[in-house]
Order: sequence, then C-alpha cells, then structure tokens
Amino acid sequence: MVGGNIIGERFVAVSFGESHGRCVGMLVDGCPAGLLLSEDDIQGQLDRRKPGQSAVTTQRKEEDRVEILSGVFNGFTTGAPICMLIWNKDADSRAYEAIKNIPRPGHADYPAMVKYGGFADYRGSGRFSGRLTATLVMAGAVAQKLLKETLGIETVAYTSEIGGIKAAGNNITAENIARRYDNDVRCPDPAAAEKMRDAILAARRDGDSLGGVVECTTSNLPVGLGEPIFASLEADLSKALFGIPAVKAVEFGSGFEGSKRRGSENNDAYYIKNDGKIVTRTNNSGGILGGLSNGMPLIVRVAFKPAASIAKSQDTLDISTKSQARLTVPGRHDPCVVPRAPPIVECVVSMVLADHAIRAGLVPPVLKKKGSA
Amino acid sequence: MVGGNIIGERFVAVSFGESHGRCVGMLVDGCPAGLLLSEDDIQGQLDRRKPGQSAVTTQRKEEDRVEILSGVFNGFTTGAPICMLIWNKDADSRAYEAIKNIPRPGHADYPAMVKYGGFADYRGSGRFSGRLTATLVMAGAVAQKLLKETLGIETVAYTSEIGGIKAAGNNITAENIARRYDNDVRCPDPAAAEKMRDAILAARRDGDSLGGVVECTTSNLPVGLGEPIFASLEADLSKALFGIPAVKAVEFGSGFEGSKRRGSENNDAYYIKNDGKIVTRTNNSGGILGGLSNGMPLIVRVAFKPAASIAKSQDTLDISTKSQARLTVPGRHDPCVVPRAPPIVECVVSMVLADHAIRAGLVPPVLKKKGSA
Amino acid sequence: MVGGNIIGERFVAVSFGESHGRCVGMLVDGCPAGLLLSEDDIQGQLDRRKPGQSAVTTQRKEEDRVEILSGVFNGFTTGAPICMLIWNKDADSRAYEAIKNIPRPGHADYPAMVKYGGFADYRGSGRFSGRLTATLVMAGAVAQKLLKETLGIETVAYTSEIGGIKAAGNNITAENIARRYDNDVRCPDPAAAEKMRDAILAARRDGDSLGGVVECTTSNLPVGLGEPIFASLEADLSKALFGIPAVKAVEFGSGFEGSKRRGSENNDAYYIKNDGKIVTRTNNSGGILGGLSNGMPLIVRVAFKPAASIAKSQDTLDISTKSQARLTVPGRHDPCVVPRAPPIVECVVSMVLADHAIRAGLVPPVLKKKGSA
Amino acid sequence: MVGGNIIGERFVAVSFGESHGRCVGMLVDGCPAGLLLSEDDIQGQLDRRKPGQSAVTTQRKEEDRVEILSGVFNGFTTGAPICMLIWNKDADSRAYEAIKNIPRPGHADYPAMVKYGGFADYRGSGRFSGRLTATLVMAGAVAQKLLKETLGIETVAYTSEIGGIKAAGNNITAENIARRYDNDVRCPDPAAAEKMRDAILAARRDGDSLGGVVECTTSNLPVGLGEPIFASLEADLSKALFGIPAVKAVEFGSGFEGSKRRGSENNDAYYIKNDGKIVTRTNNSGGILGGLSNGMPLIVRVAFKPAASIAKSQDTLDISTKSQARLTVPGRHDPCVVPRAPPIVECVVSMVLADHAIRAGLVPPVLKKKGSA
Repeated sequence: MVGGNIIGERFVAVSFGESHGRCVGMLVDGCPAGLLLSEDDIQGQLDRRKPGQSAVTTQRKEEDRVEILSGVFNGFTTGAPICMLIWNKDADSRAYEAIKNIPRPGHADYPAMVKYGGFADYRGSGRFSGRLTATLVMAGAVAQKLLKETLGIETVAYTSEIGGIKAAGNNITAENIARRYDNDVRCPDPAAAEKMRDAILAARRDGDSLGGVVECTTSNLPVGLGEPIFASLEADLSKALFGIPAVKAVEFGSGFEGSKRRGSENNDAYYIKNDGKIVTRTNNSGGILGGLSNGMPLIVRVAFKPAASIAKSQDTLDISTKSQARLTVPGRHDPCVVPRAPPIVECVVSMVLADHAIRAGLVPPVLKKKGSA
Repeated sequence: MVGGNIIGERFVAVSFGESHGRCVGMLVDGCPAGLLLSEDDIQGQLDRRKPGQSAVTTQRKEEDRVEILSGVFNGFTTGAPICMLIWNKDADSRAYEAIKNIPRPGHADYPAMVKYGGFADYRGSGRFSGRLTATLVMAGAVAQKLLKETLGIETVAYTSEIGGIKAAGNNITAENIARRYDNDVRCPDPAAAEKMRDAILAARRDGDSLGGVVECTTSNLPVGLGEPIFASLEADLSKALFGIPAVKAVEFGSGFEGSKRRGSENNDAYYIKNDGKIVTRTNNSGGILGGLSNGMPLIVRVAFKPAASIAKSQDTLDISTKSQARLTVPGRHDPCVVPRAPPIVECVVSMVLADHAIRAGLVPPVLKKKGSA
Repeated sequence: MVGGNIIGERFVAVSFGESHGRCVGMLVDGCPAGLLLSEDDIQGQLDRRKPGQSAVTTQRKEEDRVEILSGVFNGFTTGAPICMLIWNKDADSRAYEAIKNIPRPGHADYPAMVKYGGFADYRGSGRFSGRLTATLVMAGAVAQKLLKETLGIETVAYTSEIGGIKAAGNNITAENIARRYDNDVRCPDPAAAEKMRDAILAARRDGDSLGGVVECTTSNLPVGLGEPIFASLEADLSKALFGIPAVKAVEFGSGFEGSKRRGSENNDAYYIKNDGKIVTRTNNSGGILGGLSNGMPLIVRVAFKPAASIAKSQDTLDISTKSQARLTVPGRHDPCVVPRAPPIVECVVSMVLADHAIRAGLVPPVLKKKGSA
Repeated sequence: MVGGNIIGERFVAVSFGESHGRCVGMLVDGCPAGLLLSEDDIQGQLDRRKPGQSAVTTQRKEEDRVEILSGVFNGFTTGAPICMLIWNKDADSRAYEAIKNIPRPGHADYPAMVKYGGFADYRGSGRFSGRLTATLVMAGAVAQKLLKETLGIETVAYTSEIGGIKAAGNNITAENIARRYDNDVRCPDPAAAEKMRDAILAARRDGDSLGGVVECTTSNLPVGLGEPIFASLEADLSKALFGIPAVKAVEFGSGFEGSKRRGSENNDAYYIKNDGKIVTRTNNSGGILGGLSNGMPLIVRVAFKPAASIAKSQDTLDISTKSQARLTVPGRHDPCVVPRAPPIVECVVSMVLADHAIRAGLVPPVLKKKGSA
C-alpha cells in the first residue's frame, strides 16, 4: 500500500504512531479466531527489546506497556482486527526543535524533509525512530504464539557478531542459545559476549557506536512454505527484515560465503533418517530451496549498521540556510542497537511465517470451535 | 497475492509460464500511457541474458524473441495492461521424466513435489527455472526505459565477484562499467574478468559450478523515493531481487562490512557542492537512509550461490521408493549463472524503482498528451 | 485483505473495534502530507450520524467524541498513518448474553456464530454493529475535506425515500438539499419529510421498522476518474457502499429505471456550453461512462432494508438446543436507519473518490511545501 | 491495483487485451493445484456469450476459441498462473478511425480520450469493449468448475426482464431455469421470452436498443462465506458485477422493493427442517446477512442499460474542432446485450465466490495429492 505501513497478504499488519506522538501501535488483521491471547503474551518480547535494561543500551527508561484495544473477547481472538498500542510518555522534544533543519548523518532526516515537504514529525525521528520496532514486536509476538500453538514452529534469534567480534560457531549450541538472554548482548557464546560488551562500552566512552549481526533460526517448519518468484520465503522475509531501522544486509544459509564455493560443496545432499524423515546432510540453503521451505531449519542473518546517533561532532548542513554545520547529536542513545534486536528479529520472522502458513492453508480461520474437544 | 507471481503497487508485474510449457510471459499493469515502446526496447536486455553467448554459459541455444500482445497502440503504451511473452521452442523433456521422483540437490524439486502434491510441471524446473528470469527482464526493460525517459534515472549492474575472485575497486570506473559487456563474465575489471573466466572453465572441466556477486548502481535518483518501514527501498528491492533464482544474500552500501565499523566511520557526512547540490562525502548508506533515497547513487550487491546443476554425481533420494539414490544431473547447464545475471538485476531494480517513482507522483499516468509539444 | 477490514489502493482505510468493546476506530494510510486536520473536521459528520438526535432515531445517547492518535503534527497531516478512534462508553451487555445462542432474524448472528466458531464478540452485534459506520465516517470525513480543498469536489447525500414515501423530484433543489438537515429525516422535500417522519413514528408504535433510500450526488468531479473493468467508479463505490450495514441495493444514474428504456431515451447527448465546457443534456449515466467520470454530477442511490431489530416477537431458534424459539429483540433501536445514513453515505463516497483522485495523480503526496506560498 | 485490471485476494484474475488488438486474455493466479482443466471447460460458457447466435444478437460472427498458455500440465492445474486468451480475428477498424474524435453517446469514448491523453486504443472501444467480458468468462468458468467439484456450489443466471417485460415469478421454476438456453433471450418464462424477443426485434427495426435485468442464484453455499464490512459478499460481488460494461444497478434479495417494507415483513424467520438443516421461511436477504452467506440461495439482480450503440442519429461533438456534430454509430451491434449476459454473470459471481471459498479455507491449495485415492 502507498504509505508502506502495511505488510502481509493473510496475516496483515499495519503500523502507526510516532516516537514522540501520543502512541505507537500495530493493527493485525487476519489472525485466526480462537487463539488465547492477552497483553502478557506480547509484553514478554516487548520487555526484551525495551531500552534501559543494561549498561550496553541507552539509559533512557521506557515503560512500554502494551494495551489490546480490539479483536480479543473473553480471552480469545475473535477473527476481528487486533489493535495494540503503547502510550508514549511525555518526551522532551526541545532538542529536536533545535536541530530540525540540521539533518543528522546516517539518519532519515534529510530525505524525510524533502519527501514530506517539512510536514513530517521530526521529534525523536518520528516514524523513522527505532521506537517503531515496538510495533513490529506487537504483531510478531502474536504470530509467534500462533505458530507455536498450531504448528509447533519455534523461532529464536541471537547476536552472532558485534563490532567485528564473532560468536564461535561451536559455541552456538541449543543450550547456549536457550541462555542467550543471560548476558547483556544476547549472544550464545559467553566468551564472545564478554568481548562484545567491552567493545560496546569502549565505543561509548569514545562517543562512538558499533554495529553487528543477528542470526535467526526457525525449527519445525513444514515443507513447502513460500511461493515461487515474488513471494519466496527469502523475498518476504527480507522485505520485512529491512523494515527494521539500521538493517543493511540480509543473507540466508551460506549467503555471501556460499557464493565463493563450488556447487559440489554448497549443494545439500539428501538422506533419510531412521525415523523416515527426509533431511539434508548440510544446510547451506538455510532451509529454503526455490523460495520454499525444505523442512530443514530456516537460517537468516541480518546485518545492522553502527548506530547513527553518536556523541562525536560531525559534518552536516543547515538546510534552512543551505550552509555547512557541525553537529553533536543530542540525547541519550544506544551505542549499539544489536543487543535489543534479537526479539525484534524473532517477531518479524514469525510475522512473515504466520502469513505464509495461513496462505498455505496450514492454519485454519478458526483454531478450534468453541467448546469442541 | 497468493500465488506469489505478482509484484508492485503501481507498476504491477505478473509473471506466468513454465520452462518447458508453451511460453514464458509477463503482464505489466500500471505503465503510464504515452511511452514509445516496441519489442526492440525489451529484446536488447533479453539478448544479454540469453544462454549460448559464450564459453562460460550453457551451450543451449534459445532464440527468445519477445512479443507484445497488448497495451501498445500506434507505437505508444496506452495505459492498458502490457502482455509480453516468449514462445518456448520444443524442448526435450525426457531427461526430466526419468528423474521426476529424484530431487536434485540445491533445486526446488523436493519442496515443490510436497507443496503441489505432484501436480507441478517438473520439466526443466517448471516455474522454478532460471528461464523465468526472462519474465523479470520483460517488465524491467519497460521500467528501465520509463525511468530513463522521464527522470533520467540510469541503472547499471555488473559482475563484481566470481568463485571468490573479486574485481578490484579501483578498476570499477565509469569507463570500465560502460565496457562491462566486452568480456564474457560482464566484469568491469578486465584483469579479474580473465581470472573469473578461467575459474569458470576449470569448474566446468571438473563437472562443477561457481557462484558470485553482482553489484548494481543507480544514478540520478530523486531524493525521497521509498516509504518508511515496510516499503523502504531496501525492503522492496530485496523482495524483488530474492525473486531471482539462486540469490541468497542482498546488501546495500557498506552492508555486512559496515556492520564491523564504528558509527563515526560509517556515517556519511553531508556537504554542499559548488552547484548547490547536497551530497555526502562517502556513500556507505548506498544512497538509502531510513529506507528513502538520499540523492546519492543507490548501491546494492546480490550474492548468487553456485549453480545447483552439476555433472558430478550426488547423493539424493528416490521419493517414490523412499530410498537413497545417486544422481548425475542430465542436460547442459550454466557452470555459473553470474555472467548472465547483470541484465536481470538491472531490470529487477528498475522495476521496483519505477513502482516507487509512480507512487511518489514523479511519473504521471499520461507522459504527454498526444500532439502536445 | 483477508479480514475484509481494509479498503483502498492509495487512500487506504482500516476499520477496527467492536460495538461494546473498548473502542471503534479507523486507520487511514496514504493521506497526503500538508492537510490542515483536527478532530473538529471529523466530529461534524460524526455528530450528524450519532443517535439520540430526534424522535425518529433510537433514544440511546452516544457521545462519540473522536480522537486522533497519530499522523497529525502541528495541525497538519504528516503523510504517516492517521489513527482515529472513539472510546466506547460502558454499555450494558447483559441483554446480549441472554440471547447469544438465539440468532436475531435479519442480523448477522447466525452466520457469524458459524464462521467464527463461537469466538466472535456478539455484544451489540460486535463487528457487525451499525456502530461501525462511525469508522467509515472517520476516514470519509478526512477524504471529504481533502477533496474539497484540493479539487473543489463536493459530495452531498440526503434521504430520497422512506417506507415507500418518495421525495418529489422537483423539490430536490440545490436550496432544499442545502437545508436537508433542517428536518429529522434529512430529506430535501419538506412535505415528503413530514410524511416520512409520521410513517417512522407509526412503525415504532407498532413495534416495527422501516427502510428507505439515500441519494448521493457529487459535483466538480474531474473527467476520467476511475479505471476500466475491475476498478470502475461504479465497482469501487458499490463495494464501499455495501460495507454499510443494511444496504441491499446500489444504482447509478437511471439505474433500474433506465433498464426499461430504449437506448435513444437513455443515452445522454453531448453539447458544448457557452463557457466551452463539454456536458450532456441529460444525466442518465449518473456521471459515469465506461466506469470513468465524464464531468457530469455523479449520482448514486443506496437502498437500506428496514431495521432488523424490531420489538415484535419473531420466530427463530436456540442454536444450543437446536430447537424453535420466539424472540423479542431487547434494547432501544432505530425504527429506521435512513435518517442517520446521509452523512455515512457522503463519507463512504468521498473515501472512494479520494482513493481514485490520488491514483489518477490529481492529488499530490504533499499538498504544499511548508512555508511555500 | 492501479490499472484496475486485477481482482481478487486469493483467486486472482488479471484481464488484458483490446477489442481490435491481437487478443483478449485473462490470467488467473491462485487456482489450487489438481483441478482437471481443459479448454473445453471454458469454451462452453464462451460459446453461450458469443455473438451471432440468434436473431436478437449482433450478426457479427466471432469464433472465440480459448487457448490455455500456462498453468496446466498433464490435464491438471499445477498451482501456477493460468494464462488464457482468444486471438482476435482481423477486424475492420476503419469505421473507428473516422469517428475517433467524435465520442459516441453512452460510451466511454469521451472520458477515455481525456484520461489517456489520446493514447488509448479506440478501435472497437478498445479496453472498454463488451468483448472484454470474454476475459471475465475465462476466469469465471475455471472458478465455476472449481466450486462445483469441491463444494457442489451451483450458480445459474437468466434473463428476468427486457425492455420492461418481466418474467413471471411463478414461471421461474427449477425446470424452466434448466431450459433457459432453449430460447434466444435466455429467459425461464417461455411466454415472457416470446414478448422479449419481439420487443428486441422491434427496437432493432427502429434503429434503437433495449436494456434489461439478469437474475442470478447460487445454491449449496456453505454458511459464513464473506467478511464483515469491506469484503462482504455484497461488496465483492457488486464490485465484480459492475465490471461488466452496461451494468448500472445491483441488488440482493428483496433489494429496492424490500426498502419499502416493514421489518416484520422483510426479516426472514428461522426454522429447522426435518433433516436438521437451519433455513429461513422467506429469503428476502438473498442468502446474505451481515455480508455473510447464511446457507440460503444467494440471489442477485443486475440491471443493464439499453445498448449505447444505436443506428439512430444522435447529438454529439467533434472534440478536435470542439463543435457540435451528429453521429450515426457505424458497425453491427447488439440491439440488447441482455441475452448474452447470463453466462457472463454466472462466471463473474463464481469468480468472486471462489475467491471467498479459498479465503475461508474451504478449498485447499492442492485438491487431492496425485495418485491419492
């Protein structure tokens, strides 16, 4: 749709709200009736993304309590649109008044000024704020519960790299992934997590910031999700993942690394497990062949650029006077957005997979007739 | 839409046809009236993608003459849907009969069998064939001409890496890019092109294949194309690019590399050129900030996995008997799809940019009243 | 979209909320930036539709104050989604508890029970309540202001028939239409209005209800709005108008009456006015030819069935026991919905025309650069 | 979508082609895999709509053989897009050259000239020709077979009124409806059919034309098809039906007549049949309550204006000189389009119901696994 605030064919999500406006919210149309749903199902993921939780995130405190305004009755979804929102606390927008004509490097400020003719809400980046990722989490948390309860699909995301420091592959075990939230950077490799944490704190001390990579894996996907060509799983997942501010690259399976190999190394050979399940010996495809799920774990990696808001002084312009200017970005910001990103990536991936599961007829419009066994 | 064969909001493309069916075609709805258009405008790009052009591509010969069936009258587009197609030459499908129960590793065969319950056309990979990229070129060639003539937008793509061999950055000059089609691999770095060519021939001798990376850059983009969140330029470009078979990764600007940097290194500082144009000193954003074009060249890189069809014998299964099998893929195939990919990437990028240019109101529904000066 | 709560291609409206839930609301995506907009612009039309205004409507009092939650900044639309809602007052839902297994004749109760497996919110008809027309008014009031300010387009609707009593054509003058809200039934013919009022009161005394017809006319439409075949003005207007509960018929221009005539009587002959404007002598087409506006006033008539909620006892069933039952619908209801319908029809028509005006490139994404003359 | 040539959410149809262009065609995306389908399944309905079949239609002969270009393999649909088309025979377009600046009253000529800036194909009305209804029949015939074979849904349409002559209700019996194609006007009432035929011939003798009404009824609809508000069955059916040229009114059930009644007369009382089926004593709702099917037969009536092309001389203009002109429409035309309309209405209704049946999860993406019992 024109505004770019709508996604999905069957599990449709519409994002609204601004960073310093009255609220940020998400409307979900197409969620089947009969899903047990309450604010608590959504709050858990929101709490994992919210700022102020550790030394490596901004110290801004945001309560971020979600409210469900429609679509749930007697504890169950009704099949009607689910409107969810978070009321914004009064934010101090004066700092943004001062720089409203001075675009911050790495931010949407300049193209947004041009695109919206000066009418866009620039306070706290308005529609372009990382705060809008809370709306992605709202829809995604509903999708994640829907997929878990109907098809047993599980999606987990974690930090795999920050500032060039990589988690060691052999430390990315099921056990460590389960404990990913035990450290501030949400990385399954404890040793790497320590180094990542130090690197973030060092960057902050220098008035600078870091980027990194979040890896996400989905298990128990049925075979054949996705559509050829324009609605392949890669197509729809990447479209949604690039909706997360600061994401600049997405790869599936062996991705860029695989493009350096030969076919005989990169093709995944099939074999039949003792239980009769058809699997592949390797998973360079990341669980996707021809845009369709092949039954292996779906693996996607998302690269985040270093946070654009840094304390260091930068070269920019004053648009009103069309003259050069120096800018020190005001406010308290994340020195690295990656530690807050795993729950967002989990939710975005779940949102897309729920859409495809419904399209494939694997999730019915009504989960279970009321009162039926 | 459900079938995944439709893309775009305003410049809408619908792909149809199968590799060994009667034809492959594309229907474009939403192209403005008044664009001078003939088969020749499309054939040029089709000829660059067609096989059998050099030693590094398959020796299969395909004529691939496009026909316009509707939407053009007296040489101009009318505003009605433009239906374009290529009639398939009779292909020998017997080889595919023989392996219709034996999924080829790296291909969509297995998930497609499951998804379509055995009804999918498996001949030459059916809907999943690289041959369908001809349909992307049809729509994209129209879009490319539309953007060139209305806004002066130019998109060029070239091979930047094959089998791990990279083009040297300092050799990727405007002059060399203009000559990219002078060598078989379509790489602007002549020295690297030579090495890439040798690597492909070596892989073929070994009955193996290679992958690589195509880089694409668009100049003269107006500021402010794209929409926040779900229809950012990155979101819509990646969705379309992942519709190209064998694509496993997409990155913009500094991409994965940028995620290793600090913000002070990755942010692009603004300055004003003597002509008053607002630009940035670097272009790590790849011309996109907050999902919107910022006036700098748009830069996207697309990673292709090594071609899945190799002569080497591979482990797979016989689905009908649910038993292990060995397979040597029959037929003549590209040892590397990258040399044929640049025109496809140019067209896909153009298709998405045309959609956004129309959405942004920069291209009118009628280009110029007939007879008007 | 799947849930059926979304309409429009470029001026997109998403309805949410339930009659007795927390709120009813509308989200508009695609409204251009730079439109001066406040709650007052919407409240006017909401006040005309709200109940309890006269003897011929239900005596239920509903405050219905609209709130804008997003998309407006410093008094102007920003180009971001506009979320609007009305908080519901605590309603007494006990009466609906008592009949939740007893479908009311003429209402959606029975098919909704089956469709949603018992999970739908049945209180006050939930999503099927006439109360949801308030959400149509929210989006439509924004569209109506947008069309008025950018293109001078004016849409007015009025009651033309109630209970078989018709307004006399020669009394439907511009002056009388301007005074349509001076009488309780919103009919431009004062004499007919009197009879309609008496008929409604008589029906109420009998514990019964009436239906009727609303006529709507739009002036100053540019020539060429609408698209051939599936997005003709008739197609999109009727789709939206049938979204109003109780609407069972829609006709344009001479409609059913015209189908009894000969072509020589029904064709509208062209002529050129002194000011050079091209018009037709008659307007049997209702301003639409081939689905496109032809510059003449757009004329559409909408038939409403008699209100389904009547005090008279009716035959129905108890679904839980699958046995016959008698029902007297509880609560206070409109004996005729027509008097409240004109503002709704005006808004729905405006919503569709705004969508088409934007599609046709007649309304830009930004109305006027801020600060520009 | 922008061009207005696309309809449907899940059973998606895209129309293309022009009256005197190379072809007219339809592309269907979203048809489930596993439907036995051949040209013969479509040709039957096309033959019923084609001209030259009787004295009451134009004497123009059109062969109209449909070809399936994609989406069918080994006799079954594959789940891929089904492209169907009819090659146009060389038509003599000279007559249209002569009047290309002289808009025919009642036709789209004038608004189309303005909308498309003179680029539209005006030969034989181009995209606005009744010939495009052949594309509606192509998609609808596929839908009609799909619904019959999967859910036993049957849709039949017939002429109920021509030139004000109505079929007698008591003659519209199942037996007579089954024989509706035995007379030239396709009316189930033989006596009325005779009068209608005479009226059409009389109108033709006078160089004039007639309009009329087609009634359509669908049986065996499951309960709960349709979505509240914007995707109600009435909304989506009317949108598609108004896509048929010359349609100016659509009503469901008691329609306009019902709006004159009291609620106690118009509400349909429920009762339980001996077989336990829940039905209503009357069917004033036309099988639709709250936009959802209620299990009773769906009843819709469609009014066609008298054919705009008449032999009588009419007042019009010469746009090129902006002066008055007299026009006698050249060529051979239907004196009444109604006799050819019943198969078109059946197909359009089937197309919409197929879309909703798939949305409701009642028709699976694969009808039956190949080889499965």
